[in-house]
Amino acid sequence: MKQKERPLILVTNDDGIFAPGIRTLAEEMKAFGRVLVVSPDKPQSAMGHAITIHNFIRLREVEFMEDVKAYSCSGTPVDCVKLAVYHLIKGKPDLLVSGINHGSNLSINILYSGTMSAAVEGALENIPSIGFSLMEYGIEASFEHTRPVVRSVTRNVLAHGLAQGTCLNVNIPQAAAGPLKGIRVCRQSLGSWEDAVETRLDPTGHEYHWLKGEFIAKEAGQDTDVWATGNGYASVVPVTYDMTAHRELEAISNWDHAL
Amino acid sequence: MKQKERPLILVTNDDGIFAPGIRTLAEEMKAFGRVLVVSPDKPQSAMGHAITIHNFIRLREVEFMEDVKAYSCSGTPVDCVKLAVYHLIKGKPDLLVSGINHGSNLSINILYSGTMSAAVEGALENIPSIGFSLMEYGIEASFEHTRPVVRSVTRNVLAHGLAQGTCLNVNIPQAAAGPLKGIRVCRQSLGSWEDAVETRLDPTGHEYHWLKGEFIAKEAGQDTDVWATGNGYASVVPVTYDMTAHRELEAISNWDHAL
Repeated sequence: MKQKERPLILVTNDDGIFAPGIRTLAEEMKAFGRVLVVSPDKPQSAMGHAITIHNFIRLREVEFMEDVKAYSCSGTPVDCVKLAVYHLIKGKPDLLVSGINHGSNLSINILYSGTMSAAVEGALENIPSIGFSLMEYGIEASFEHTRPVVRSVTRNVLAHGLAQGTCLNVNIPQAAAGPLKGIRVCRQSLGSWEDAVETRLDPTGHEYHWLKGEFIAKEAGQDTDVWATGNGYASVVPVTYDMTAHRELEAISNWDHAL
Repeated sequence: MKQKERPLILVTNDDGIFAPGIRTLAEEMKAFGRVLVVSPDKPQSAMGHAITIHNFIRLREVEFMEDVKAYSCSGTPVDCVKLAVYHLIKGKPDLLVSGINHGSNLSINILYSGTMSAAVEGALENIPSIGFSLMEYGIEASFEHTRPVVRSVTRNVLAHGLAQGTCLNVNIPQAAAGPLKGIRVCRQSLGSWEDAVETRLDPTGHEYHWLKGEFIAKEAGQDTDVWATGNGYASVVPVTYDMTAHRELEAISNWDHAL
């Protein structure tokens, strides 16, 4: 009997192919299967689900890690997934992992996150997909304590699969927060960004604007990702690309829709 | 008694401030209230929920339409909303409308759509928000038949409001499809983009890639937006920014999450 081929695992991120987080993730994936890295050639944080349609995209094969084929991509994280599936693999990988992001993707930040948008694109392609984020910015963040979480979630997804249209959003507290108590499966907390613009004057006296602001969690019930990560757990939120507000369908159907 | 001030309506889009669709939308909004236009200075289709964080953003006041204050913005559609709320208005408008998009935003295209991401950003800010799309590409598309739909949905949202975290995705068939039968409230259909990359060689023999592909509706039950618009109706999908796959929470909680 022919032995089953090891799973093919697509690794991507939004911080770019030179970020430490994607190296940790690729290292861990080598224990589970064959690894293909396709990742942006520059940071693409906060690109959301953007794709490149007004310009072409370049792929370049790069040295990355022993036994790992890797390409840098001039496009967005979602572009990376499309090029991997439709050009490099010409088929579906068995698993897609994105990250490990340098910074939190809790709550509604999934909407802005290139890391999570790559995972959602994987779900759209019916590929079991996971986004991993470390809740610490900065190039010098330590990823060592994230490894057991990456292994546990990956092992589960390969064993159980994911329902159609679902991917996972995994957030891991920073090492300085102390030893992890475990993993909690959560819903997305409610939150928003506030005080989001800083205006400056250029040397000719004209205004320009920077987005900034602060994420405010609007609630943190014990079933949310904000609560879990604030209390020593890594959070796992199952994410769907069905954005229908099903609970509102009936009330809105009852409006007078005459033209 | 002081008369209540007319509602302040923020108008944006992703096709840029010079697109015909946003003119139609702004014209219609003048009947409902005071209109502020903040729209990208160039086409920003398929930018999803991207925001600009590695560069600054410029706003420029422009001539647009009588009695309408208008700004072009160097950023994405979501940037436009943030700058309107946190810099220009320094508060919340009573309504946000986005579009009218040149092209369909049915089904999962909401994820890629700058038009709908602006509406979702409005929902994140607790502003009643509506995205409108005409299912016809091209600068010469006629928007006349969309006006009764825009009026009906806007009247309803101003009268009834929208539940927290909800905005509306409205798609209108092209005029050539015949007279509209009415408006149907729907869920988002399942679908995907296929055959998504075309590879070419540049004059020096190096590959470059264009995203392309075709949207395939994977189902079109009578309760979906794909069915409604394919059968002569304008579709209205209530959209939430809660992407939690609530139905999967229990099954995934039961996995062995040991570290």
